[in-house]
Amino acid sequence: MHRFKTLQTYFNEALEKEQFGGTPAALYNPIAYTMQLGGKRLRPVLCLASCELFGGTLSDALNAAIGLELFHNFTLLHDDIMDEAPIRRGEASVYKKWNSNVAILSGDTMFAKAYEYIGKTSPQKLPDIHRVFTQTAIEVCEGQQYDMDFENRIQVSKDEYINMIRLKTAALLGGSLQIGGIIGDASDEDLEHIYKFGEYLGIAFQLKDDLLDAYADQAKFGKQTGNDIVTNKKTFLLISALKIADETAKSRLLELYSSSAKTDNGSKVKEVLAIFEKWNIKTMTEKAIMDYQQKAITELEAIKMSESRKGTLLAITDYLNKREM
Amino acid sequence: MHRFKTLQTYFNEALEKEQFGGTPAALYNPIAYTMQLGGKRLRPVLCLASCELFGGTLSDALNAAIGLELFHNFTLLHDDIMDEAPIRRGEASVYKKWNSNVAILSGDTMFAKAYEYIGKTSPQKLPDIHRVFTQTAIEVCEGQQYDMDFENRIQVSKDEYINMIRLKTAALLGGSLQIGGIIGDASDEDLEHIYKFGEYLGIAFQLKDDLLDAYADQAKFGKQTGNDIVTNKKTFLLISALKIADETAKSRLLELYSSSAKTDNGSKVKEVLAIFEKWNIKTMTEKAIMDYQQKAITELEAIKMSESRKGTLLAITDYLNKREM
Repeated sequence: MHRFKTLQTYFNEALEKEQFGGTPAALYNPIAYTMQLGGKRLRPVLCLASCELFGGTLSDALNAAIGLELFHNFTLLHDDIMDEAPIRRGEASVYKKWNSNVAILSGDTMFAKAYEYIGKTSPQKLPDIHRVFTQTAIEVCEGQQYDMDFENRIQVSKDEYINMIRLKTAALLGGSLQIGGIIGDASDEDLEHIYKFGEYLGIAFQLKDDLLDAYADQAKFGKQTGNDIVTNKKTFLLISALKIADETAKSRLLELYSSSAKTDNGSKVKEVLAIFEKWNIKTMTEKAIMDYQQKAITELEAIKMSESRKGTLLAITDYLNKREM
Repeated sequence: MHRFKTLQTYFNEALEKEQFGGTPAALYNPIAYTMQLGGKRLRPVLCLASCELFGGTLSDALNAAIGLELFHNFTLLHDDIMDEAPIRRGEASVYKKWNSNVAILSGDTMFAKAYEYIGKTSPQKLPDIHRVFTQTAIEVCEGQQYDMDFENRIQVSKDEYINMIRLKTAALLGGSLQIGGIIGDASDEDLEHIYKFGEYLGIAFQLKDDLLDAYADQAKFGKQTGNDIVTNKKTFLLISALKIADETAKSRLLELYSSSAKTDNGSKVKEVLAIFEKWNIKTMTEKAIMDYQQKAITELEAIKMSESRKGTLLAITDYLNKREM
């Protein structure tokens, strides 16, 4: 079994050999640019690790892994237009470096290229892989839509929020693991477990992101903390606070979150964090993360495979949720 | 063998039974709206007709046909954003009726849904269908990019123009026919011929569009004629004129086509048409259309199948290129 770092290196080396350039250059240059921006390569690594867990060979899962990374990056290209996000992985986003039209069309091409790589997997397994990949792609779109819908709503329930991040983030982790499992010849029952493992892991991962955005050490986090608060983002923290705080705190939160200021005047983040502190929102969120992480581990334990083979996926679970505050 | 109209009706009735709505409504309403706007349903009908030509059953090709129509409509959603086109099939385009973000994300979902329908074809044939469909999708994106590139270039050669419309328009007609052929168990040789038939047909079809835009009877054409001239679009007519006209006419054309006016002052279209008239551009374009149509028919003739079975596709060829002036 290869470790996370080894799989990352294996994937990055393989990716470097792929040519994402081509003609017309205006279409392919943004794709090559995006694919070399790096990132954790989490989805392809999960696919590779899952394939190996069930006894498959890494090289058999490589094309699917590249397809998954292309798909993930395609969603980032389009999300950055919709969210008007100028920065991606510390560099200009495609929409900002070129323009929206470029980001739309290069993104569409990346989506098609993702399917091209998916299509290079074994013909016998393609129908199943195609089905999982497509279902996942649809769910990611649904999640992004719910996320945008929530921006215009005053109240969002915890269930609605969890469902949104399940679709937007967790489905692709589950899908990546399940596709790796299909390639590694996992049983139907184990394919269910590995999917659920990824789904719970993804939810924990997103909740941790919510927490880091509010509480991380800015130097270690690598971006401005408190940004979700400034931009009125409905995170797990806010939704939890609106659910349990008293009427006074709730009204004040709603008032603070109705400000359309794009930068903090210095007091909004501080005041929101004080309300979170009073109502133990940080602890509550940490507990929710631990709960989802435990659910993920339970699914992994249910897989009929020697525990020694599960080390890589357990370590990834640990790594993702021990990201520094 | 069913005729074009019968296949259209068959497809439209089947399409009506499909549910393109869903939740979140903001994502799925634009898809349902787009799919009921109608249109010729040319691509699915070609897929169905090709399947039948080779002895396949219509119902076997239905899901792929729906996938092809979904894909085509997805490209229209995104093209309308890029081209800032407010009207589609006589109604508000999605980008105009809602907004760009809606058109981006609903479009992405339609692309994924297209693959969902493609995935419902027989598992044995899916790898081939998946490959053709994906290759086609990539080519359509490349064609759209060349089309946009050409807007910012002064001179475009005939070969470059034909290659652009081959990618943007003709590849999907060829791909639709080839997918129908795969489902109908056509031989590899016949799959080549049916693809080339569609490719040549598509080029003729697009050249006819260029001609109609300049010369159609406005009442029958259903939209403003001369629009390509007003918007400085590099059509086959302009490219031909720039190639054969003398220096005086060429300079005048380049001057006229550098105007950034969005509406005609009444004289630009008239003057351009007079230059086209002098250099026999209409006749030259009509000849090119006939040439491509003949190439298409030659490919159809090469298919080893009784001539009586080819009636539907011959009639479609005739119909597309006899659209009224």
